[in-house]
This record gives sequence, C-alpha cells and structure tokens, in this order.
Amino acid sequence: MNREPRLVEVRKNVLKQNDVVARELRQRFREAGVYVVSLVSSPGAGKTTLLERTLTLLNRRYRVAALVGDLATENDAARLRRSGARVEQIVTGTVCHLEAAMIQRIIEGWELGALDFLFIENVGNLVCPASYDLGEDLRFVAVSVTEGEDKPLKYPTIFNSADVALVTKLDLAEAVGFDRAAADANIQAVRPGMPVVHLSARTDVGMDQFLELLERQLIETRTPSVVESAP
Amino acid sequence: MNREPRLVEVRKNVLKQNDVVARELRQRFREAGVYVVSLVSSPGAGKTTLLERTLTLLNRRYRVAALVGDLATENDAARLRRSGARVEQIVTGTVCHLEAAMIQRIIEGWELGALDFLFIENVGNLVCPASYDLGEDLRFVAVSVTEGEDKPLKYPTIFNSADVALVTKLDLAEAVGFDRAAADANIQAVRPGMPVVHLSARTDVGMDQFLELLERQLIETRTPSVVESAP
Repeated sequence: MNREPRLVEVRKNVLKQNDVVARELRQRFREAGVYVVSLVSSPGAGKTTLLERTLTLLNRRYRVAALVGDLATENDAARLRRSGARVEQIVTGTVCHLEAAMIQRIIEGWELGALDFLFIENVGNLVCPASYDLGEDLRFVAVSVTEGEDKPLKYPTIFNSADVALVTKLDLAEAVGFDRAAADANIQAVRPGMPVVHLSARTDVGMDQFLELLERQLIETRTPSVVESAP
Repeated sequence: MNREPRLVEVRKNVLKQNDVVARELRQRFREAGVYVVSLVSSPGAGKTTLLERTLTLLNRRYRVAALVGDLATENDAARLRRSGARVEQIVTGTVCHLEAAMIQRIIEGWELGALDFLFIENVGNLVCPASYDLGEDLRFVAVSVTEGEDKPLKYPTIFNSADVALVTKLDLAEAVGFDRAAADANIQAVRPGMPVVHLSARTDVGMDQFLELLERQLIETRTPSVVESAP
C-alpha cells in the first residue's frame, strides 16, 4: 500500500503527457476541418452497431472514417468496413482505454482535409476512458436500456467527461421494463443539463435526431465566427 | 511516452503487494471454512440481480454474506440487504476494480467461521479486475445475452482469470436474437474446457444448476481429503 502515492504521481505524468498530445491532435483536426466524435460505453452497449449504421447513413453525403479500439481482435473494423468508410482498428493489448498517442500514431500520413467526420470508438469500459482526452470535438457516452437505469449514478466520472448521453437499444426497452424517466433523472442528477438522445440502431428510431446533431455540429464548426471574419 | 516503463514497474509492485494480501485472505477463508465466490462482468450484465436472487435462495439453508464494489453509490448494498444477508458496500472512488486490501479492510473483525458463503461482486468492468486476485475460491465471469456473442474474443484476459462463465439474462435471448452456439464457441476458443452456466435470475431458468455448482464446491472444500484424514 505504501506504493500508492508514487503510482498516483506517475499516473499524473502520463495523463499530462496525454493532454499535450490531445491538444496537438485537436489543433490538427481543426486545421483540417474534420469533425471528430468519440464514443464510450460499457462492453456490449451497442457502440459498433450504432457506428455501423451511422457510417452507412452518413457515407451517402459526407466523407467519413472511423478508428475502433479493442483489447484484442480486428472484428469490429471488418464489420464497420462494410459501410464503405475507411476504418482502422487499434488493438490496445491489456490497456483499458485509448490514448491520444495511439490516435496520433494510426492517423500518421492521413489526408485529414479529405474527411468531414472522423469517429473514434473507445474500448468498452465505463471507467478508464474518462481520464483520456483524445482531441475529439464531441464525446458521446452510450448506455443501453438493458444495462439498467442506475448506470449514471454508478459511473458519474464518465458521464462528466462526455458531452452528450445516448440511450441505446431502445427497441428492447419494453422487453426489459426500461424506466425512461428514471434513467433521464439519473443522467440529470449526475450532469445537469446534459443532452440525451434515445435511439435504436436496429429500428432507426432516434437516428434522425442523432445524425442531425452531428451535422449541426459540423456546420457550426465550419462557419467562421463574426470575430474571425471581421477585417 | 518515456514514462511508460516506470509506470509498468510501479504497477508490478502494486500487483505483487496485492498477491501477498490475497494469499493471506485465502488462508484466512480456508481456516474459517467459508467458501468465497467472486463475480466480474461489464456494467449492467446483471451481477446484482443474480446476486440478490442467489442470496435469497441460499439464505434459507446457508449462512451467506456479500461484499459489493462500486465507484460511487451504496445502492447495490441496500438492494442486496433485502435478501436478509449481511451485505457491505466497498466504494472505490475512481478505482476500476476491487483489490485484496479493500476486502481485508472491510472484513476486519468479521466472524468468518459463522459463514458458509461469502460473495464478492466486483466493479462493473471487463478489463481491470482481471489482474487482481481477491483470495476467492471461485471466480465467475458473467456476460449477458444482450452484450453480443463476441465478448469473450474481445476480453480474453478476464475470461482467463475466471473459473466459470455465466451467460445471464437468458430470458432476453430471443428478443435480441442471441446465438448461443456462437457464444459458447467463443468462450471455448478463448478458454478451452471452461464450464458455462446459462441462466436468468428473473425467470430462475438455470438457477438450479448455478446453486448446485456452488453447493458442490462448498461440500468438496469441507470434505477432508484422503491424505489429510490418514493417520
């Protein structure tokens, strides 16, 4: 137990180093005009299914690509490539989260200016990814109706690290007796004012709202602000 | 990135220290004759529901208690106490797993000899708990039918750290189109020969098999071996 303070100190340095790389990434993304979206959730919350549907739908009108993190296997990348988008897998080994340096390494040499959206699917984990900035513009935390309404209360840090909450697998809400009011109240208790989108990538319920949110963000990012456009 | 080797080294020391405490715990559990069972899974796989049902059913014939780990909230302990069993919550803060020292601290002063079973529900996480021995006799890894059949391939380390796999929420198998043969094949691919119990704590399907397994283990542990009983 006497090792703990030292571990915390070393961990702080790792996080500081991650923040430096994340800042560089964010700058690079901004200059290229690509809007970067990350997804965190527990394993099996439906990140890959949502991403597959999203890439398929967006690919008709936008230039999209995705990076997917997993401890092992390249299966998700293979699945996502069916959408027609460029997809790369990041295999983390035993590391329970993506880090900015992993993103930096994999997009080395990419022509980012040729992209509208870049999606980053984190390793399935409601704890570890919270502390690692990946340079993204927007972070979604997804929780499925099958996981129970209490998850925001039990994993408050990840909800606080994210910008928007997604409630996934809405098509199963009735089968599991999902209490939407309780889930929403728990999200708001942890993070007052947090936007929430309820959706199902299987039935497409809520997908419109999700895609509109993404498109609105892209347009806003690319619109020069009044200050910048003044002479 | 130059800090990584140092982080790994410090982490190794923490793990070594954990193993020392876990060994002490295991010795203490054995002397007291209490059978200790731990549960790991991703968030929302149904650990607490399964444990609530298990405690309720076992409490009729055995002396049972439980420890539950969570980052935040004492909700699970309150839920589990309805079973009539003694339940204590371990709030880990930002730590994504239980450690042997946390168990040691919370059971200080307990009369372990007065227990038949002690259950330990880990923090919901398919990565971090893998490396931490808690001194338990048996570790279950639970994965729900709603999480998809690929989880063993994506989180092989946690399956290798566990003794028995549980496939939970079997009552939802049809609603989610769960492919049992594929799930079983993936478990066996990662961990050949791993015993698997399919169950639903909501409908009690498979609960008999699960409880029988626990009772058999308790009896085996308490039966003196031929060598020990020889003069």
